[in-house]
Amino acid sequence: MSKVIFQIEGANSVVIDCNDGDNLLELARRANVAIDAPCSGNGSCGKCRVKLVVGEVESLPSHHIFKEEYDEGWRLACCSKVSGDCTIFVPDIASAYQSRMRVADLSSPHEIAIFEECQENLRNSGIHFENPYRAVEVLMAEPTLDDTMPDNERLSWAIQEELGVANVEIPYCVMVKLAHVLRQEHFHVCVKGELKGDTFRCMEIGPAKDTTMVGCAIDIGTTTVTMVLTDLTNGKILAKGSSGNGQIRYGADVINRIIQQGKEGGKKRLQDAIVKETLTPIIANLCRTTGISARSILRLSVGANTTMNHLFVGVDAESVRMEPYVPSFFHWNGLLAGDLKLPANPLAPVLIAPNIGSYVGGDITVGTLASCMWDRDEMSLFIDLGTNGELVFGNRDFLMSCACSAGPAFEGGDISCGMRATDGAVEAVTIDKETMEPKLSIIGDEGQKCVGICGSGIIDLISELFRCGIINAKGLFVREGSRVRRDHHGMGRFVIADESESETGREVSLNEVDIDNFIRAKGAIFSAIETLLNSVDMTMDMIDAVYVAGGIGSGINMKNAVNIGMFPDVDLQKFHYIGNSSLSGSYAMVLSDEAIQKTAEVASNMTYLELSTHPGYMDSFVAACFLPHTNAQLFPHSVQEA
Amino acid sequence: MSKVIFQIEGANSVVIDCNDGDNLLELARRANVAIDAPCSGNGSCGKCRVKLVVGEVESLPSHHIFKEEYDEGWRLACCSKVSGDCTIFVPDIASAYQSRMRVADLSSPHEIAIFEECQENLRNSGIHFENPYRAVEVLMAEPTLDDTMPDNERLSWAIQEELGVANVEIPYCVMVKLAHVLRQEHFHVCVKGELKGDTFRCMEIGPAKDTTMVGCAIDIGTTTVTMVLTDLTNGKILAKGSSGNGQIRYGADVINRIIQQGKEGGKKRLQDAIVKETLTPIIANLCRTTGISARSILRLSVGANTTMNHLFVGVDAESVRMEPYVPSFFHWNGLLAGDLKLPANPLAPVLIAPNIGSYVGGDITVGTLASCMWDRDEMSLFIDLGTNGELVFGNRDFLMSCACSAGPAFEGGDISCGMRATDGAVEAVTIDKETMEPKLSIIGDEGQKCVGICGSGIIDLISELFRCGIINAKGLFVREGSRVRRDHHGMGRFVIADESESETGREVSLNEVDIDNFIRAKGAIFSAIETLLNSVDMTMDMIDAVYVAGGIGSGINMKNAVNIGMFPDVDLQKFHYIGNSSLSGSYAMVLSDEAIQKTAEVASNMTYLELSTHPGYMDSFVAACFLPHTNAQLFPHSVQEA
Repeated sequence: MSKVIFQIEGANSVVIDCNDGDNLLELARRANVAIDAPCSGNGSCGKCRVKLVVGEVESLPSHHIFKEEYDEGWRLACCSKVSGDCTIFVPDIASAYQSRMRVADLSSPHEIAIFEECQENLRNSGIHFENPYRAVEVLMAEPTLDDTMPDNERLSWAIQEELGVANVEIPYCVMVKLAHVLRQEHFHVCVKGELKGDTFRCMEIGPAKDTTMVGCAIDIGTTTVTMVLTDLTNGKILAKGSSGNGQIRYGADVINRIIQQGKEGGKKRLQDAIVKETLTPIIANLCRTTGISARSILRLSVGANTTMNHLFVGVDAESVRMEPYVPSFFHWNGLLAGDLKLPANPLAPVLIAPNIGSYVGGDITVGTLASCMWDRDEMSLFIDLGTNGELVFGNRDFLMSCACSAGPAFEGGDISCGMRATDGAVEAVTIDKETMEPKLSIIGDEGQKCVGICGSGIIDLISELFRCGIINAKGLFVREGSRVRRDHHGMGRFVIADESESETGREVSLNEVDIDNFIRAKGAIFSAIETLLNSVDMTMDMIDAVYVAGGIGSGINMKNAVNIGMFPDVDLQKFHYIGNSSLSGSYAMVLSDEAIQKTAEVASNMTYLELSTHPGYMDSFVAACFLPHTNAQLFPHSVQEA
Repeated sequence: MSKVIFQIEGANSVVIDCNDGDNLLELARRANVAIDAPCSGNGSCGKCRVKLVVGEVESLPSHHIFKEEYDEGWRLACCSKVSGDCTIFVPDIASAYQSRMRVADLSSPHEIAIFEECQENLRNSGIHFENPYRAVEVLMAEPTLDDTMPDNERLSWAIQEELGVANVEIPYCVMVKLAHVLRQEHFHVCVKGELKGDTFRCMEIGPAKDTTMVGCAIDIGTTTVTMVLTDLTNGKILAKGSSGNGQIRYGADVINRIIQQGKEGGKKRLQDAIVKETLTPIIANLCRTTGISARSILRLSVGANTTMNHLFVGVDAESVRMEPYVPSFFHWNGLLAGDLKLPANPLAPVLIAPNIGSYVGGDITVGTLASCMWDRDEMSLFIDLGTNGELVFGNRDFLMSCACSAGPAFEGGDISCGMRATDGAVEAVTIDKETMEPKLSIIGDEGQKCVGICGSGIIDLISELFRCGIINAKGLFVREGSRVRRDHHGMGRFVIADESESETGREVSLNEVDIDNFIRAKGAIFSAIETLLNSVDMTMDMIDAVYVAGGIGSGINMKNAVNIGMFPDVDLQKFHYIGNSSLSGSYAMVLSDEAIQKTAEVASNMTYLELSTHPGYMDSFVAACFLPHTNAQLFPHSVQEA
């Protein structure tokens, strides 16, 4: 029996008893200590770095840990076994996995402009932003010995008078504080609730001046969660927040999460990771900083993929990946905030954007809503690049969708120096063909040195490496130079910043494994587009518009994305980046009953194409795993300079 | 700083730190240890007996503790102060306070017959026993690769088919276990829920064979709680249970309880005492013994006085006793079992029978329902003798009600040897006028010796003492004999069993203080009847029927009750004992929507007469505090033999 102390960065330490030989990552999971492990513990990703502070562990050597780092105590948790009492430092996982991806969380004016344009388009498409929530200010006569009407009747009468309704429902959560609030506020109060036909259903009572009614729109990504609090009366954004999805410690992708939830107690653990550990702190924090009472959150909406929705609700998600692929629900609207003990009004409905298939979920249906392609005659292609890639093609007459396992490369995952688009990230690259010297656009103040590279930077870099003939169509290095280096296995890499040029003193580079990962990811996307169009007997030239959404961010250079064969080679003016469309659509749903209705229509009109069993997809994928493609005629504008 | 260990009979010990000088009863309350204290700790009732096991306490002497008992360690908690570490034995409060009152809990065939007659009368009065709860057995096709409809849609379709409804609502509590139950039961299940218009709202899902739907009817008395579980389909009684109201440690009467709930944290404490400590264990126990799942309890109903209802809901009850007497609610129907975390289906409504005044609550409106007097032409008087006395007078045209503070004497409280009608209780007495020897009817097997005297026995005894001229009209002893004894103050008592005759070795007797308490109680009842009738310009001879309900029990001898001037001197055939009418009415409500509707009508048609401010009531009361009355002409059939 040994004792392991996890010293968690920015949190309290956790002590757990264990046996010698226990795997450190497994132990951390048992102790509910969050360690980033996108590969779910097979030693391949190198992200589960922890630092030995006291004692010893038995660790396998790993190329992810340099010798100096090893000497400092750094180990991979997944490759380490307990051998006696020890103290382990665990870096803050939030910064760890946020460092690998870009969060479309409305943190820049550009993203906000995109978001607002989406909403404007929805309005122009005839979606009225109306909802049934009302804040009613009522002033009652104070009771006297001659006027002894009970509190609940007094309030009901006043509301009936004010709203002209026949019925007023007072639930328990209002009843228990009614007497106190009425007296404290001298019978001058504001009641918030839902107006439905001739019935007003109270949800909250407070001071007359507190009329704020809040909606909470949430995008639950596999990797990242983003949300906005909005004023239900006018749609104003009151606060926004984001963080990593706390489920990350159970694996980076949906498959690993599903496997984890299938274990004893797994459903509860995965649900807690998203509800208690992720959403609850964000909402609580937004409420605290804005001074909004959680009880004023009267409606919530969630855009998430099918697996995330199942794990969020706490129902078995095994069916998402196992025959006969029958999920608990695609479309379900019975959830209340109180069911999950979310910090919101317990009676607030939690709208879940409807899923249409195992791998095309509510984030896509609601994203499709946000794109407005359902209202257009033109043929549109919607591409959501998150941890998975999902596509929708169609117009007002039909909608066809599919999903492909693109992996997290577009979010900077699976890339050795990948990071999110924050200070120090290379977000754009050009390369001088002659000197092979890169010119970097680095996020941050002037003089900011390079830390890593984010999604848009990777696209640029690969496109430029290809254009300059530094890599070939297979992504292998074919020119030598000072920036091109090779390890002892001969694996090439392109150094965009060496030890002296980088912020951290660690080289920032892109190696052949990274490039291969990325080519497979872009190949998955392109072949999915091709298969989807083929399935409706259409060709690339029939595409009138391409809406690109998701974590890849607004910095994406569409020309370069076409150049590497990721997106179809159509007129660049047809491309539109529409930001976090899952959040945009959720925002519309929380504010507008018509948006809810329209999303349900979009979902029920959308056809789901299962790629994995579709004849031809695999061939198409293999053919797409080149730069730009084995069939270069598909990309007449792709350039590899002689 | 001292440490007190409470050794609680039949429960775990509790340890609490305290200061020397702390009052032992207060300390027990702080530690959540239930000690019976009907007088709320002023030393007068002598019920808070505890036994010192280790250590010492400083106690005032009390006539409630004999010398031998003192030597054994018995003390009154309210008269004791901590003086160093000690261990205190606390007798089981349930037995303690149940010993003082009779519980009309359907434990005898006679009570069940009365209960069933009530229900039969309701049916004859046109109340249909119909409710919206349905158990739907559905058999679905098991999913295949060609039939991948999600679980919730599969279930909804099947229910729509089965019931012919348009909508099926599936709430969270069903959704979270849907996938599991469907597969475990091979898609052959029973769904229980509520049918409302063209919508079926699921509440529970389980095996196809489990079709039991249960209603829980509850009578929350100030002293006692009784309940029945009933089959919602046929009204069959599945289980019944009762226990003391756990709030008893906060005082025996509603006033003391209200004072206690007004203290910091008091609302929560009083609510916990009834919900967590009283109702929850009874329901859980009934479910356990019958094998019924708590989730199958789909509706609950509560008959309780206004204060009990407020404390149950957890809202401020101060208004019940304080000007301007504006309660939180009289009639409110927004409560769900889940709000209180009762062991029942969380979506089950908890119907609270409507209150009509501070001291005429739901137990009376629903008791009036059970009496069926609202359906009759004849003038009826309804008398509920619980910890308080409440009266309703009227017929199908009008209903007039009032309450009087009769105290707990009818339940055997406030009487030194009072007890409930269980083994060892004297339930009937006759006295030989010449020898003054009592002839006792004692509950129990042949040879059972006397332990105490219950409500009906007290009425008999006082009536007989008066008839035989042993006590005078003031209740003072005026004949001497071997059964009449006096203490050193000269206070007389009638010994019904001396040390050698009683079961316990303690004398069982009725003293002048007991008789005085009882005369004041019966005087309160009679003067209330008189005032109520006067208020509508009616007289005693206009009474066509008298319905007696409540804890006094079925053993009551109406002739003797008239003889002592407690009930009006009308034809004895007009008297009907109707048992626990609050429970009867609650049972009707839980089973029948028409009964709910009728109770609401009864409540809204009932006029409340406030006796305390009514001119003439006090004079009437003073005049009634004699045997049978200062105006003997009111009781032509009362007998005091020469």
